[in-house]
Amino acid sequence: MSDSFQKVTEASGTGSASVFSNPYGPNPSDFLSNVGNFQIIESTLREGEQFANAFFTTEKKIEIAKALDDFGVDYIELTSPVASEQSRADCEAICKLGLKAKILTHIRCHMDDARVAVETGVDGVDVVIGTSSFLRQYSHGKDMNYISKQAVEVIEFVKSKGLEIRFSSEDSFRSDLVDLLNIYKTVDKIGVNRIGIADTVGCANPRQVYELVRTLKSVISSSTDIECHFHDDTGCAVANAYTALEGGARLIDTCVLGIGERNGIVPLGALMARMIVSAPDYVKSKYNLKKLRDIETLVAEAVQVNIPFNNPITGFCAFTHKAGIHAKAILANPSTYEILNPHDFGMTRYIHFANRLTGWNAIKSRVDQLDLHLTDDECKEVTAKIKKLGDIRQLNIDDVDSIIKDYHVEVNTPAVKVVNKDNKDIDELDINEPAAKKQRN
Amino acid sequence: MSDSFQKVTEASGTGSASVFSNPYGPNPSDFLSNVGNFQIIESTLREGEQFANAFFTTEKKIEIAKALDDFGVDYIELTSPVASEQSRADCEAICKLGLKAKILTHIRCHMDDARVAVETGVDGVDVVIGTSSFLRQYSHGKDMNYISKQAVEVIEFVKSKGLEIRFSSEDSFRSDLVDLLNIYKTVDKIGVNRIGIADTVGCANPRQVYELVRTLKSVISSSTDIECHFHDDTGCAVANAYTALEGGARLIDTCVLGIGERNGIVPLGALMARMIVSAPDYVKSKYNLKKLRDIETLVAEAVQVNIPFNNPITGFCAFTHKAGIHAKAILANPSTYEILNPHDFGMTRYIHFANRLTGWNAIKSRVDQLDLHLTDDECKEVTAKIKKLGDIRQLNIDDVDSIIKDYHVEVNTPAVKVVNKDNKDIDELDINEPAAKKQRN
Repeated sequence: MSDSFQKVTEASGTGSASVFSNPYGPNPSDFLSNVGNFQIIESTLREGEQFANAFFTTEKKIEIAKALDDFGVDYIELTSPVASEQSRADCEAICKLGLKAKILTHIRCHMDDARVAVETGVDGVDVVIGTSSFLRQYSHGKDMNYISKQAVEVIEFVKSKGLEIRFSSEDSFRSDLVDLLNIYKTVDKIGVNRIGIADTVGCANPRQVYELVRTLKSVISSSTDIECHFHDDTGCAVANAYTALEGGARLIDTCVLGIGERNGIVPLGALMARMIVSAPDYVKSKYNLKKLRDIETLVAEAVQVNIPFNNPITGFCAFTHKAGIHAKAILANPSTYEILNPHDFGMTRYIHFANRLTGWNAIKSRVDQLDLHLTDDECKEVTAKIKKLGDIRQLNIDDVDSIIKDYHVEVNTPAVKVVNKDNKDIDELDINEPAAKKQRN
Repeated sequence: MSDSFQKVTEASGTGSASVFSNPYGPNPSDFLSNVGNFQIIESTLREGEQFANAFFTTEKKIEIAKALDDFGVDYIELTSPVASEQSRADCEAICKLGLKAKILTHIRCHMDDARVAVETGVDGVDVVIGTSSFLRQYSHGKDMNYISKQAVEVIEFVKSKGLEIRFSSEDSFRSDLVDLLNIYKTVDKIGVNRIGIADTVGCANPRQVYELVRTLKSVISSSTDIECHFHDDTGCAVANAYTALEGGARLIDTCVLGIGERNGIVPLGALMARMIVSAPDYVKSKYNLKKLRDIETLVAEAVQVNIPFNNPITGFCAFTHKAGIHAKAILANPSTYEILNPHDFGMTRYIHFANRLTGWNAIKSRVDQLDLHLTDDECKEVTAKIKKLGDIRQLNIDDVDSIIKDYHVEVNTPAVKVVNKDNKDIDELDINEPAAKKQRN
């Protein structure tokens, strides 16, 4: 036990252990897993533009694209150039920036859109068409034969221009499985770089995703990658992305803070939190994690939202520990109650000691921070005072500090001893001087 | 195809289909699944009190407990009565309210705590002890034999008082599996109502959770329920809860808005979103979903946070549709881009039409709302005007409405025709009067 324990400690839970010896890493039985070899298609400038509050000026789009490129995303996906005149101009402008990330645009599976898209200067085109019965009836009204035919035409056209091409179904988890496999097999034969599956309404669950990805892998050629797009309506987007990678998908669509239609898709930051636990070396070597907070702030300001209080990594309390037993253990070894290391993201840990759930270990740590000197027994005693006040009202750090300092003055003022010349027992003394007569050690 | 499609439409994706015919429901191969038979242990007043910002007065605790009871949660878990004097008094006060929900308190696996807990009037006691190597070294420093012995003593004591008892390990996913199974088998033999597994650091992933639950089910007796506690550090808490239920767990710990240590645990609302898709009849008959927003507002105000913009169900944009193709399909049938029905939660749907991604179907719908009359061609024309302005700046509804109204006046003012007596072609006219000469139909 203690041997294996030491190993894990060394890696700090998210440390330098190789992917396959990491207990939270890829499952060795998932032989197609891309957990340690995934790529990001960052869609803040496409899906994110469909967020209710989003209106990005050209300048803001460029700023976001550069920030994403600095972060190290593999692809940046842009709104269709046929959405509006400015959308086309912005797409062209971003293509000219010469970023390291490949630039994609996202279009309907239609030659009218494809002809415009290939002229913008993008590296690749993401094509999507609704294959669910819902979308076929209420959106475009086309049958599967028509969809196949149109897909083939668009794919061959985009390929003829030397661009990367992805073909995705829309609402894949409410599409007929046989229809889906048929069309993916068809487009795979023509040759596409990626096929996409999309949980457009956010209904999918993790094991279902794993099964679909595994099934798809058995139908398409091994050189074709699978890209996944998960909406978060039922809170499973990040987990679905993870099981998709376990099943052999390679690329995950993300948006900064997850912004998108309705409550959005896989958030870039939350995916980083998930993946750094599972593939620490890969994630830390590939992505500039310390830029995460700045990118989130940039996008949050652009779309006028607050970063959610409970946002993974950057939420204000993501690394705050409060309960006494948590604080005690964290002070001894942060890995006890942290799977993420805040320093990997340029963040810091915070022990919340100013409350009634606090414990004496947290208070002792604060005493040390204040460069005061109290024995363990004295720390326990001052902790009891703090908890008592914490029962009455919400405390802040100043409250706690002044209780500690007052107490410190009391126990370190020899004059008090002289005053008590009648040798009264400590319990009989004024409550404001309880430790005055105690033996220091 | 069209037959099965009609069936799904009838159920509106989340409607009245029985659990086992619901394609997003329990997987029939999960024969131990409790997806359609789960219970909630609501821990806002325990785990939630460990949230950085939480300071609940007695009155606020009672208000929250009553609201949770109205919502229909099965259990309400309270902070340990040994945390502070007021914690004990509050626990006693809530036990006296006579709520329908059973009241639990959550204590360390220690007789000192147990003796206090059983005197508070609770219906049951949740006992927890750290079993991971991390916690055993850095938190309590005890070995597995000691843990077993202590567990047996505490469990027998609580049972002797006629109360429900749960025994949970802490940090279960970083505990040695053999140790875990040993201790669960031991406590199961003594007889506990529930055993608990806890992802204390938020490192677990969905398939790993499923496997652990399945393994546990094979070790414990069939009358013992499994309760799960998932932290959300890596964004998988809701999904982990779901796969746990698939594997045969019965009870999920939640907090309102997910508040708790660090970025918290499974949010009550997000779990409802997940479960209503999978077990609509069960969820709608059991929980008072229309109260969700009020409870979230109550707790958000108490701990001084904003409801996250992307919160499932109640986030401001959870039911907002923006892109043209989305809006078009939603107008034809909401199930095309919604797996959740906003009305189930007392919420409403919103089509965001004031932006450059808008489509003419959304604008036509707005024209109808305004009780104006434009042909499809006219709607397309006015949509082009709106998109043009939307390229220049962020639009609001008033902008769109005034463009529509101006346009409507133009096309419905016969006087304009008289002015154009020189029979100029429409394209040569001032851009402000483009449709004036068009044929109405």
